[in-house]
Formats: sequence, C-alpha cells, structure tokens
Amino acid sequence: MDITAVAIAKPSDNVNVIVGQAHFIKTLEDLFEALVQAVPGVRFGVAFNEASGPCLVRHTGTDPGLERAATDAALAIGAGHIFVVMLGNAFPVNVLNPIKSVAEVCTIFCASANPLRIIVAEEAGARGVIGAIDGAAPTGVEGEAEQKERHAMLRRFGYKQ
Amino acid sequence: MDITAVAIAKPSDNVNVIVGQAHFIKTLEDLFEALVQAVPGVRFGVAFNEASGPCLVRHTGTDPGLERAATDAALAIGAGHIFVVMLGNAFPVNVLNPIKSVAEVCTIFCASANPLRIIVAEEAGARGVIGAIDGAAPTGVEGEAEQKERHAMLRRFGYKQ
Amino acid sequence: MDITAVAIAKPSDNVNVIVGQAHFIKTLEDLFEALVQAVPGVRFGVAFNEASGPCLVRHTGTDPGLERAATDAALAIGAGHIFVVMLGNAFPVNVLNPIKSVAEVCTIFCASANPLRIIVAEEAGARGVIGAIDGAAPTGVEGEAEQKERHAMLRRFGYKQ
Amino acid sequence: MDITAVAIAKPSDNVNVIVGQAHFIKTLEDLFEALVQAVPGVRFGVAFNEASGPCLVRHTGTDPGLERAATDAALAIGAGHIFVVMLGNAFPVNVLNPIKSVAEVCTIFCASANPLRIIVAEEAGARGVIGAIDGAAPTGVEGEAEQKERHAMLRRFGYKQ
Amino acid sequence: MDITAVAIAKPSDNVNVIVGQAHFIKTLEDLFEALVQAVPGVRFGVAFNEASGPCLVRHTGTDPGLERAATDAALAIGAGHIFVVMLGNAFPVNVLNPIKSVAEVCTIFCASANPLRIIVAEEAGARGVIGAIDGAAPTGVEGEAEQKERHAMLRRFGYKQ
Amino acid sequence: MDITAVAIAKPSDNVNVIVGQAHFIKTLEDLFEALVQAVPGVRFGVAFNEASGPCLVRHTGTDPGLERAATDAALAIGAGHIFVVMLGNAFPVNVLNPIKSVAEVCTIFCASANPLRIIVAEEAGARGVIGAIDGAAPTGVEGEAEQKERHAMLRRFGYKQ
Repeated sequence: MDITAVAIAKPSDNVNVIVGQAHFIKTLEDLFEALVQAVPGVRFGVAFNEASGPCLVRHTGTDPGLERAATDAALAIGAGHIFVVMLGNAFPVNVLNPIKSVAEVCTIFCASANPLRIIVAEEAGARGVIGAIDGAAPTGVEGEAEQKERHAMLRRFGYKQ
Repeated sequence: MDITAVAIAKPSDNVNVIVGQAHFIKTLEDLFEALVQAVPGVRFGVAFNEASGPCLVRHTGTDPGLERAATDAALAIGAGHIFVVMLGNAFPVNVLNPIKSVAEVCTIFCASANPLRIIVAEEAGARGVIGAIDGAAPTGVEGEAEQKERHAMLRRFGYKQ
Repeated sequence: MDITAVAIAKPSDNVNVIVGQAHFIKTLEDLFEALVQAVPGVRFGVAFNEASGPCLVRHTGTDPGLERAATDAALAIGAGHIFVVMLGNAFPVNVLNPIKSVAEVCTIFCASANPLRIIVAEEAGARGVIGAIDGAAPTGVEGEAEQKERHAMLRRFGYKQ
Repeated sequence: MDITAVAIAKPSDNVNVIVGQAHFIKTLEDLFEALVQAVPGVRFGVAFNEASGPCLVRHTGTDPGLERAATDAALAIGAGHIFVVMLGNAFPVNVLNPIKSVAEVCTIFCASANPLRIIVAEEAGARGVIGAIDGAAPTGVEGEAEQKERHAMLRRFGYKQ
Repeated sequence: MDITAVAIAKPSDNVNVIVGQAHFIKTLEDLFEALVQAVPGVRFGVAFNEASGPCLVRHTGTDPGLERAATDAALAIGAGHIFVVMLGNAFPVNVLNPIKSVAEVCTIFCASANPLRIIVAEEAGARGVIGAIDGAAPTGVEGEAEQKERHAMLRRFGYKQ
Repeated sequence: MDITAVAIAKPSDNVNVIVGQAHFIKTLEDLFEALVQAVPGVRFGVAFNEASGPCLVRHTGTDPGLERAATDAALAIGAGHIFVVMLGNAFPVNVLNPIKSVAEVCTIFCASANPLRIIVAEEAGARGVIGAIDGAAPTGVEGEAEQKERHAMLRRFGYKQ
C-alpha cells in the first residue's frame, strides 16, 4: 500500500481548512446549508469527491477563491467521499458542530489554520484518507506561567469569562 | 507495521456498509436499538469486535444474511472494538446521526454502497483500522451542466425541494 | 512516511483512555468543563497538543496522577491538535457524547481500558494520528450461549432491563 | 386571557401528530428535508404558521391528505410560528430527534396518535400554544404483572432485545 | 378550562426533579438506560403516564423511594405522556442532555431542586401540563459585586476554571 | 391562578428574542460561551432568573443595550429559572441549536423578531412561563403562487440552493 502526504494549498495563511469523510452527493448541498445557517455572511468554499458514476469533484460556496481552493484540495487528496471546507471569515468552532450534525458526515479528520498535510493510502488506483498532520509537534509541557497566560488569552479573546 | 486493505464482501451490490470504532460490548445492543428505532421495518445486520476476555465477534440484526455478512466483515477486519453495519432496505442518511449519537461510538470510518476496502494496521498480532477506500478516485471537476444535473437529481429523488 | 505505534502508559490497568483530534487551545478548557459537568466528582486528566506558536502540551484535570499520565501520553504521541483523556472513576459511556459535542472536537480515535497503541505517521518532523490498536484481535464468533450470557451480563451490570 | 382547547382532526385514527414551536418561514422546508431524510418513503404533511407579513399557513409534504390535515390543524390552532406534522407510515420515535435538531425548532409540545387537544391562549386577536392534552389521564399505577407485560411487549415489537 | 398548580412532593429537599413530555410506553425504559449510562451509580426514580389502553403510571429506577416519589408525582400531575424523574445523587446538568436526546422526549418543562409546582390544564377529565413554577420570583438585578461572587462560586464548585 | 401576558420591550424592532427555561446559575455563563462560540463578533445580551437564595436577575453579554433589555425582560417575566437572549447582529437559526445543547437548558419557548408577549401564570407570588404569543395569527393558506415565492425567497436569501 502506498502512503503519502498531500500538502493542502490555501489562498491565504489564515484560512481554516476542515477535511472529513461523508457519503452521497447530497453531502455538498447539506454542507452548504449547514454553513450558511451557522454564521451570517460566512465566506467559504466546499468540495466533495463523488466516488461512483462520473466521479467528479462536486463544489459550491459563497466565495469563488475559497471554492476553487477547496476543489483543488479535494482533487489533490483524491479519495472517495471525502469533503474539504475552506473558511474565510469564520472559525472551526463556529461550524464544526453543525458539520458533525449533517446526516451524511461520518467523521472529521482535522480542522486547522496550520500548515496541513492529509495522509492518503492508495491501492489499485483508489485512495483513502487515513489521517492528517496538523501543524507542528509539541516541544514541551506547559508550566504554571503558560497556564495562566492560556487562561488569560481565552478571556482576552472573549471566549470565556 | 504491516498495513493491508481488507475488501468488504456484501450479500448484494446495493447493500450499504458502515464501519466505525466503538468501545464496550454494550455497543452491539445499543446499535440494534438505534437502528430499529430509526427506520420502521429496517433490515440490517451488525457486528462488534470484543477486544478483551473471550474476544468474540458479537452480532445481531433483523436479517440473517446481513447479520452473517456483518460478522464476516468484522472478523476479516480483525481490529478491536470496531463495528460493521450492513443495511438492506435503508440508507446511511437514515441512520448515521442515530449511530453517531450512540454513547459508545467513537467515530465512523465510512458509509457506502461502493466497493469498499478497510485499511488495517497490524503489529504483534493486534490490529487497528486506519481508514477506508470508498469507491473510486475523482476523475475531474463538475462544470455548470453537471451542477444543474446534480441539483435536479436531488429534487427527482425527493430529498430537496 | 514513517509509521509507528505508541504504547499508552496508564497509572493503573482499569484507567480508561480516550484519544481524539481537535483544534485550538480552547479545547482543553472546554473538555475540562464537559467532563466535570458529565459526572459528579469525576477524577480525570486531560492533555492537548498545541500545534503552532509555543507548541506546548496543555493540560488540566481533577487528579494529578491522571493529568500527568495524559500529558505524558500526548507528548509521546506527539501529533498536533490531538487530545488525551485519562478517566479514573468514570467510564467512556458517561463522557463520550459530551466530548463529541465539544465544538473543537473533530473525531475520537478510541476509548478503551484495554492495552492501547496509537498509530502515528511522521514526515519531516511533524506527526499525525492515523488510528489505534485497541486490545486484542477477535478469536471467533459468539454462539447462542455466549449471546445469552452477554445479554444477561448487561442486565447484571444494570445497563439494560 | 382567553384559554381554549383545539381538538386536532386527523384523516385516520392511527396518524401520529407532532406539534411544535419554531421560527421563520425556512422551518417548513427544513422540516420537509429532515422528515424525508429520516425514513425512506415516509408519507407525511407539515404546516407552519407564518407570523408576520402575509401571515399564511405554509405547507408541504409527500401525501396530499396528510398535508391538508396538517394545514387545517395549523389554521385551527392559529398561533404564530407553530408547526404541525401528520405522519402516515412512520412513528414519532423515527423522526423526533431529527425534528428537534432542525435549527429553527424551539420546542415540541406533543407527539401522539391519541385523541389530541392543543391548548391555546388568545389575547387581542393573537394566539400562543401553551400545552397539549394528549390522550387520557392515568387511572392507576402498574404492578409487577403489568411491568413484565410492558417489558415483554417492547421485545415483541422488536424495539428491545 | 380548569387550570391548577400541582405541588410536587419530594422525599428530601435536595432531590432534583425533572418533568417533561414524551410519547409511547418505550419512553420509560429509554429514560432508565439514559440515566444509568450518564452517571455511574446514579440513584433515581422515573415515572411515565401511559395515555391510552390501561392508562397506568409506568415506573422504574434504581432507588425505591425516588421511584415511589416520581410515581406519586406523575399520578398527581395526571397528564398523558408526561414523565417525572427524581434524582438522588446526581444533578440535572449531568442528565439533561442525555434526556433531551431520548427519541421519545418532546420537551422538558423544568429541572429543579427548588419547591416546584406543575401547572395543569384540565378539560373533560383529561389533562395537559402547560408549565412549571420553579422556585421564587426575582427580587432584583445583580450588581458588580454579585457578579464577581457568582463567577467565583462556579470556580469554587469546580465547574469552571 | 392568575394568567397574564408580558409584552417584551426591545431596543429596536429587528432585535431577535429567545426565551427559555433552564436551571442553575451556571446557565448564564454557559449561554454566554455558547453564543460567543456560535457567531464571530456576535452582539447580544442574556439574562437568567435565579430562583432561590438571593433571587437576582443574572446577566451578561457583549452589548450593554441588549444586556439591559434582556435583564428588563427577565425581570418583567418574573418566573424562576427562565432566561432571555436578545440578539443584535445574528439570527435565531445561528444560535438555537447551540442554545438547545447547553446542559442546563430545558426548553425554548420562542425565538422571534416579531412583537412578542410571554404568557405567565402566577400563584402565591411565584410565576411560571406557560407559552408565548409570537407575532400575528394566520389569515389564510398559501397557494401555488405564494409557495413559489417562498421557495424563491429562501434562494435569494442564500439559505437554499
């Protein structure tokens, strides 16, 4: 079995990418509805790899550049029934639960604005995603000072009180 | 580490297969209840690989042929705490959210009626599922005509208005 | 690509371990809140691998030994944005749905008190989890007697009526 | 405040009725999609009371008789933003969780095949649902024999093992 | 229409009471399973008012006193398809989401350890719950000092960090 | 029992109001976190009626005017354990599922930008919400032309494709 890592190209560094496994061509329209409903005015692109019949990368979105980037990433990954979301003006915390609730979604491999590589296994011309390399490896363990700073940062961001 | 692909055999081509990771022997009975509750008169088989003690493939269902096929697939995969559902007269969209909500279910690797291979890693006689090859690779990107046809098809199927 | 299995060390055999993929440093505090809320008096440790900036293993919990063990496991796995929960006096069935509902959580690789190895892919110094070897492989298929005993056992445990 | 009970008329006795509170005209199409997705071949009607602008009873479904009955019931209830589902060949257990997950749904007042009255409060020409009288009042407490029969009945129905 | 308030009697002051609307006799066994699964060793009683056929108060639990109290409360409320949970050693935050996810549950009227009255509408011998009076009315608005104390209290309780 | 309707005052007509039943003082901070997480930059106020001890209206938010309006509405409703959310730059579809998932939330009475009256029952100085009058009563049933316009409008708004 051939195992490789596909680096995901993004239109800009701060775009967030979500990659998951789903089933059925209806996934695309359901993901569109879930994203539009989650965040008012959300800019995104989404692509889904049809895995039978014409086997096309299906795509939609509210931002042509993000739609193109999601389509390119899905084609580069090349695995059946995976989907790619590229988020412009929103964050994975805003949309992950809505995406997890979409009836066709099996799992989400990763959600990240970090440099991202999708790990793909290939056999006899067909492919499956087996994981993701999301950002860099840990270099140490937080101490008391870093804990305090983490705690304070989430309050500065307004996520916690 | 030895990595191989296990082709999933199905009683008939249009059977849908769902493979996931769970924990604990209660999974089997909870999956049975979730499926029976989701779709009136659903025909299915489900199997779960116990991963300690007697280490048996646990199985149940409402259709003996589908139950046997799910059991065979779980044994062929051979990884601890995975489950296999074979669906006869229902579709993954009908049951994936109920399955995701079962308290023992960790993740779902795939849900598909396509030819399916489960990717398995083995070390020292024990195994883990690392992914799935679900159908065929994409051959291109949909254009405007294919988008219109996709849109129309979901309306012909009655999924969208 | 280098693929290895990382054995997870636990403070005691009956500790349950949950490993998953998430995103963003807020995951840690949200997992803490989800666990404390799920089970009164729960003893646990949780760690999360920050994958950008300082790249520290972030950690918290209600039990110092479990917190240390979760931190050690997260560091040993060494993949970005993964988390590890070590549960003392509770079971995965009590907490998996609350964890799945945390907005940053992408997926859960496994939940188990069995001997556990996390399968890791590494390329250019960064790593991704691709699966888990949870316990032992199945040795056979349950027959009617084992089915009856399984059914009875869940009633002895009080999970079913 | 004027409080009255509106008896719900059904095309046949075994039709199940679900009444809830939602918001926004999109509710109707989202309920349609949720129901169609939940049960293959489901026969139903659904109606929603628009509460501003033209203030029309909005309606859809897969069965004209059930759609008409849901529309009549919504008009008879006459409260803003309520919806009525009439189910032909499915049961509330198949569709209640999908309905609860629809983003516009606030609450569900009742789900029943029993004789049903919706309790409505009216002030200055506008109305609100305040509850439901679902079937008959209890006449006593089950004893050991009735418990055994209840337990056995759920197994005869195939809901439990 | 006759509207009255039914005071809920509890075995001890610190028992938490949850009252909701469901449908179908399977509710009882599903609520039992949801509660047992949510909290290890949970002590509770649950009762459900069957609303057709024999119209009995159905009941189960892990604590005879709480089961009796839930049964008495359900009978006193006397409305079809309502359920009552009495919790001994757990809190509503531990079990409300699991209860909301039970497929038969329509809504939850209240969850409280406060003195509790259930508001019931009656017409022609049948009843419906229309609301709950949960504890006392507000006497004022919190100021800055009370906000700080509230914030600190949740941290003393260990719910927040 | 005294039953009255409390008109909800809003800072401006297009503010959306959500009123629900919860339990426990932690509700407030959990609702804050759920709302902030759902929509980037969301402007809102939220208030919760503590129903024991000091019995204060607890309040927070990201917009002082909306926070004051939510506090005033909660005090005017005067029922124990209810909460009020006032949304500025977001819509109920963006936040209702996140709110329904908050562990303390029992039910949501309504979500609306329409003129809104909350129906309150009072006995012996304590109060309970029993429903909501949300906008105006239906004046007729949509015909084919109105159905087409509804369908088109949701596409113009971008909610559906």
